[in-house]
Parts: sequence; structure tokens; C-alpha cells
Amino acid sequence: MATDIRLKERLPDLTDRIVDSYQECCGIHHLGHCPLPSFDAVVGIAQDLKEILYPGYQKRQNLHMGNVVYHVGDLVDSLHDRLTQQLARALRHDFRRRHGKECGENELPDFEALGQEKAVSFLDTIPQMRRTLALDVQAAFDGDPAAGDLDEIIFCYPGLEAITIHRIGHELHQLGIPLIPRMLSEWAHSRTGIDIHPGATIGHSFFIDHGTGVVIGATCEIAEHVKLYQGVTLGARSFAKDESGNLVRTTKRHPTIESHVVIYANATVLGGDTIIGSHSTIGASVSLYESVPPHTIVMLEKPSLRFRQAS
Amino acid sequence: MATDIRLKERLPDLTDRIVDSYQECCGIHHLGHCPLPSFDAVVGIAQDLKEILYPGYQKRQNLHMGNVVYHVGDLVDSLHDRLTQQLARALRHDFRRRHGKECGENELPDFEALGQEKAVSFLDTIPQMRRTLALDVQAAFDGDPAAGDLDEIIFCYPGLEAITIHRIGHELHQLGIPLIPRMLSEWAHSRTGIDIHPGATIGHSFFIDHGTGVVIGATCEIAEHVKLYQGVTLGARSFAKDESGNLVRTTKRHPTIESHVVIYANATVLGGDTIIGSHSTIGASVSLYESVPPHTIVMLEKPSLRFRQAS
Amino acid sequence: MATDIRLKERLPDLTDRIVDSYQECCGIHHLGHCPLPSFDAVVGIAQDLKEILYPGYQKRQNLHMGNVVYHVGDLVDSLHDRLTQQLARALRHDFRRRHGKECGENELPDFEALGQEKAVSFLDTIPQMRRTLALDVQAAFDGDPAAGDLDEIIFCYPGLEAITIHRIGHELHQLGIPLIPRMLSEWAHSRTGIDIHPGATIGHSFFIDHGTGVVIGATCEIAEHVKLYQGVTLGARSFAKDESGNLVRTTKRHPTIESHVVIYANATVLGGDTIIGSHSTIGASVSLYESVPPHTIVMLEKPSLRFRQAS
Repeated sequence: MATDIRLKERLPDLTDRIVDSYQECCGIHHLGHCPLPSFDAVVGIAQDLKEILYPGYQKRQNLHMGNVVYHVGDLVDSLHDRLTQQLARALRHDFRRRHGKECGENELPDFEALGQEKAVSFLDTIPQMRRTLALDVQAAFDGDPAAGDLDEIIFCYPGLEAITIHRIGHELHQLGIPLIPRMLSEWAHSRTGIDIHPGATIGHSFFIDHGTGVVIGATCEIAEHVKLYQGVTLGARSFAKDESGNLVRTTKRHPTIESHVVIYANATVLGGDTIIGSHSTIGASVSLYESVPPHTIVMLEKPSLRFRQAS
Repeated sequence: MATDIRLKERLPDLTDRIVDSYQECCGIHHLGHCPLPSFDAVVGIAQDLKEILYPGYQKRQNLHMGNVVYHVGDLVDSLHDRLTQQLARALRHDFRRRHGKECGENELPDFEALGQEKAVSFLDTIPQMRRTLALDVQAAFDGDPAAGDLDEIIFCYPGLEAITIHRIGHELHQLGIPLIPRMLSEWAHSRTGIDIHPGATIGHSFFIDHGTGVVIGATCEIAEHVKLYQGVTLGARSFAKDESGNLVRTTKRHPTIESHVVIYANATVLGGDTIIGSHSTIGASVSLYESVPPHTIVMLEKPSLRFRQAS
Repeated sequence: MATDIRLKERLPDLTDRIVDSYQECCGIHHLGHCPLPSFDAVVGIAQDLKEILYPGYQKRQNLHMGNVVYHVGDLVDSLHDRLTQQLARALRHDFRRRHGKECGENELPDFEALGQEKAVSFLDTIPQMRRTLALDVQAAFDGDPAAGDLDEIIFCYPGLEAITIHRIGHELHQLGIPLIPRMLSEWAHSRTGIDIHPGATIGHSFFIDHGTGVVIGATCEIAEHVKLYQGVTLGARSFAKDESGNLVRTTKRHPTIESHVVIYANATVLGGDTIIGSHSTIGASVSLYESVPPHTIVMLEKPSLRFRQAS
């Protein structure tokens, strides 16, 4: 080992310069006594929720109707505690950011109590969420000739993974939880290539096949029985700014998709006023910036291709 | 900690409602004494197979010709046992699903023996698979000016990762193993963005550059020396249904690509009757629904773009 | 367990055939006494660098200005040692590959000393890198109406993850380190779907939204305040070959993007001579093979779509 001690002696000075930069340029460090939610803890919660939603597929094997109640009861109890802690952190952080309060100040709301209340409200939605997800699994089977059985869909379909995490994140988003729903959606995005903002509203029997590159914006409204393929963007056309030149972050910027619509690979549908009428089909690679009435088929014109012999 | 005990006392009731939902809506839980294959175990098998296929790159370092036989022998022995167990589970599960049998019933075939037989048949293909993969690595080097050397390709190229896992999964698919080949392909898809169905037939010297968004359908046939770029879809045009309105799951729905074809980024080739003749080139973003003869170049017509000055 | 011993007795022979293949087809194994860099070690280094760049978000919680110096000092010290080792391995491997030397030969340069020198040079760039990344975070906030605050961007934005890892890898690339920059870029690609070659030059205030499918080639030059959306390719048009038919690996093959350019989803810009002038906008799904002057808007012509009623 050829370590040059003089080189290594430069490290304390470098450490000081790094720490100085924490004081100089703000906004990309979080130093203080008030912890943020933990990405790893949020992922652990999502994995245990999946274990409850699809028992027997993920972690614990040899579950049967005689022992599953203990397994689920144990998970629910643990999820209650962990959700309470993480939701409280997210709520406290958001409050502080918006009101400029320090972490230990007296007049802060009781975020632990608020977190627990919202954790229980969320857990309460699991049975209904399972009913919706069962319809999503069935829609995948009905929509893909390559699917062998329902088990294959639960094990292997990234579209089901993405909608499962979205339904969890959307419930938390509806309960007013900041930050954590986006952590969940980005965790799903990272593993599936499917980017669904937790604000999007999506009906039952939803199926995304293959999925890589799909983007569904925050203000999308999607009715039931909609099928998307890889690379579909349901996006914004342009962004409104207020009189100070800041982005307006609340308008409906993303399209509305009515029921029984199919959108093929790499199609792009943009704009908050765009409505795709029910039972319509949007062909592969179509770019659409306007509404279409129900029962419409939109395809690329006989594509303008040039064919020639290689020399 | 502000835990409200009364709120927490609602959890046992919630647990009961969740467990009730396992009885109510079937198909998205697996409760019973007959375990499914484990996704984690299948991933562990794939990682050890990669260690054998590309020794010295992955886990164990300081391998040399004097000690590698012990390392490989140990891995092969362990893979034999784990493959036997997982293949047996997949075969048993598939048999039960198709015949409606319970797990312990007497007249079931000996799935352990069947699993072992297929595990050994699979392991037997490793030397030949290495020869094919060596050609794939070379094709990547010959096809990408940014590749520094072969090591960089083995370490860093998602296209090689995807075709490696595909060649493993396709062998298992050919041996009639259900479910596990799709677990493998989805594991690769999750990490590379490349979605190759294990049913697809792919010749040697195959190279996918960048790869995110590539989809290759179950009934594709791809000859040797084919190169694809990111976002290429080799997909189905439409799905046949039988007289009961169910999807027909066996027809050839995806294209045939002859040898020495290059397909550039985001091109889409659809349909089971579509044949891309050898030595043809399909340009970026082309959508093609028909066959082309050998030595054809297909490009977008001088694209219909509108240029204007920003106001 | 129904293990058939005779079947299992075939395994030693199979092991021998596998090891024989290591001698037969070269290039896809690394056997010898000279270890390669470890992908896992490189990922560990990247994770600790992120902990220094964005303290308080990743691993350690409850950091404050009173204790952060110890945490950072400890990480810097450990990073020095690990970087030295991995950089030395990469440099030694590259030297051997280019000069055909064995690992222990006397006349080899002192790669440990060289690795340490470059490790310290790299660590020295962290404060400046933090300044650039703070501008990237701000650009994401200014460019996306769905962003709630800067914390959400640091936790959840794959575009920030990709540019963070790119800025690390690009510094190492500028220091002449082989292999490791590509390991880093592929690690980011795997988790974000964004594939930026470490050779690309990218100015500050860079933002990629959603990001899946983005490809930025090795010889791209991107000025400051550029915004890209998912699926954008900045790629090569064709590859030059030398008189022996080998690819030329050094020419500028990828476009130049001037400042304040926005390129929307799934647009493709190709060619080393292509320059997108400053303040230009390239619309979604546009394919562009030629330069455009500053302040130009390029859109698809009113797309040639066919609308019809479903029968």
C-alpha cells in the first residue's frame, strides 16, 4: 500500500470546506433536530402492505386459512406503529416548511396523534383496496394473451406493481399526507419504469402492459376499464404562470380518459382540457392535443415512410 | 408518543375484515399447503448462474484457473438442489391449476423427480450458452463506438444483462417450466427497462444498445446479428378471440426479424405476419405494420416539421 | 425428496465442461490474480457520496451543524481509502489491457499511488459539485408545477438522481479513470431509466422530468438551463469506420444543445454536427437531424391522424 500521508492530511481541510458549503448554499441539506420521513422505512411499509394485499406470494410461504390471521394481525399492528411515525414526520415537516416553525416549539399541533388518526384511516381502506386490485388483476388477464394465469400477473406484471403502489399512495394523498405518496410512486417508477403521480385518479380494472416509459400526470382522471401500453404519456401541454412569473401548481393540466379506452404504445395525449371519449382507441405513436368523442379510433395516417434498396 | 389506545383497538376488527376478504374475492391470494416458487429464490439462482457464465466479474474475486473448478463445482451442486426445488414447485402448481388437484393427493406425478430431471437438463446447456453469450458480447463491442473493452460490456451493458437472463429463461421455457421464466424476464425488465418474453427465439450475436423501453413479444423470431436500440417495440397488432370472446393465447402475434437487421430507437414493428428481410435497416421512430424484403432501408419521410421563431 | 443420485453424479463432468469453456472461449471471464474494480464497492462509494452531497436525506438522521462535521469527516476518510483501491484497480486493469502486461510485473507504474492522487483530486471537487447540484435542484423546482418543495426533489426525482451520479462519474471520467464512470452511469440508468454517458458535458441548472428512456450520448455538449422530458434521445446518426472496417471511437457523434433549450417527450436529436440554438423548443416526438438557429420552435406538423367511428 502506497498511501501518501501528506495527501491524506488534506482531508480534514476538505471536510471543513464541505461543511462550510452546508452553511453557504441552502436547500439541499437537512440539518436539524426534526427528522424527515425515511425512504427506507416507507419502502418497508409498502412491502408489508403488499404482503397483506397478496398473501402467499411475497415473503411468508405456507400461509393457510388457519394461520393467516396471526400473520396479518401482526403485520397490521406493526404497520400501525410505523405508519404513525412516518406520517407524523411528513406532516410536521410540511407544517414547518409552510409556517417557518422550529421543531420543538410549543404551539405545534400534536403530529403524532394526527399521524395515528390518518394511519388508522388508511389501514381501514385495505379490504376495499383488495376488491379493486382483484379487478385490476382480472383486467390484466383479460387484456394480455401472453398471461398464463392470475399468479403470473401477481408475480411478474410491472403494471400491477405500479397500480398497487399507486392505489396505496393515492389513498395517502387523499388523506392529505405530503411527501410520502411521492416516495412511493418513485419507488414504483424506479422498478417498473411506470411513473404515476399519486394525485391521479384511476378507476378499477386498470391495466398497463409492459409499461416502461408510461407517464401519468398529477391531475389526470382515468375512468374504469382503461388499458395503456408502454411509453404512453398522459401529460401537460404547457404550464400557467402567475403575475410574478411563478408556476401555477394547482390547475388541471393533464387529460381525462373515459371508460373502456385503449391507448397503444408510445402515444402521447396532452392537455387539461383534452377528453378521450369512452370506448375510443388511440393508435401507437399518435400525438393528440385535442378531445375526441366516444367510440373514436385515432390512428397515424398511412405513415409517410420512404423505402429504398440498400446500395 | 401520543398513541390513542381506542384507535389502536380497532385493529383486530380490521384484521378480521382483511382475512374475510381472502375468502370473499379469490384469485389474488395464495393460501394453502402447496408453496409457489419463490421470487427471491429464483433471483438468487439467476445471480449464481451469472457468476458461472461470467466468472471473476460478479461476486467472487481472485479466481484463477487453479481454483475456479472448486468455485464452479460448488455453485453447480447448490444450483442443482435449488433449481430442483423451484422447478418442482412451478410444475406442481401448474398441474394443480390445470387439473384442480389438491397438493397432497396420491395420484399426483412425482414433481421432485421431474424437477430434478429438468434442472440437470438445463444445467447441461451452460457451456453452449457461454459460447452464444461470447458472441453477444462481441456483437456489442462491434456495434457501439462508446464501448471501451469487453469488460465494460460485461459489467455495464443492460442489453447484455437482458439477453443473458433471456437465454437462461428461454431454456427453461423450452423445457416446459411454467412461471419461473417470466419471473426471470421481469427481474431483468425491472433492472434494464428491456422486456423480452421468454418465449421469443433470438439468434446469436444479438445486441440491444441503451435498451430502456424495448419490448419483444412472446412469439417473436429473431435471427442472428440483429441490433436494436432503445424504445423498439416488436409487438402484436391485434388479438384474436375465440367464439366465446376469450383471447386466443397461442397464435403467432409478433414479427419475424431476419439476420443482420438494425432497428433504430423507438421504432415499432407489429404483427405476426410481418417479416423484416435480412440486412434491412428500420429508421428511428418508424411504425411498420407490413413486411419488407431483404436489403431494404425504411426511414420516416423527410419529417413534417414546422419551424417558427419564438415570439 | 426424490433426488436421483445417478443424475446428480453427472454434475462433476458438467463442472469440468464449464471450466473447459473458460479456456476455450476467451473474453467473457476474468481469471487471474489481478482483481477488477468491484461493482458493489463502486455503488457503496456512490451512496456515501450522496450522503455527503445531500446530508440528512439518505442514511443518517438527526444530523445538525454540531455533529455533521464528524459524520462527514468519517465518510471522507473512508471514501479516500475505498476510492484509492477501486481507482487503482481500474487504472491497473486498463494499463494491462492496453500493454498486455501481467499483474505482478516489475515495470508496472505504482497504481496505488496514482489511485490515491486521483481519489484526492476527485474528493476536492465536492464543494463545487454541491453548488452546481443546488442549481439543478432549483431548476427542477422552477420547471415542474407538480413539485411541492425542494425536499421532494431530493428524495423523489429520478432526474436529480441521474444528474447527481453523472456529475460524480463525469469528474472521474475527466480524471482519466476507466470503467468506473460507466459502472456509475449504468447504476443510475438501472434505477432511473436515464442513460447518460459519463463523457457528456452538461451545464448547471439541468433538469430531466420523469426521465424514463432518456439517452444522452458520450460526445454530447449541453449548456446550462436545459430541460429534457422522458424518452428524449440525444444520439448518433451513423458511425464512422476506419480503413480496416473498425468503428472509429473518438469522433463527435452526438449533438450540441445550447442554453435554455427545452426538448419535450420522446423527441430525437441526432448527429455530431447538429446544434440546437439557445432558447429553442423541440416539440414532443419530433425527429431532428439538422441544426436549428437560436429562438426556434420545432413542432410536428398538424399530425396526420385518421379519425373514424368504431363500427
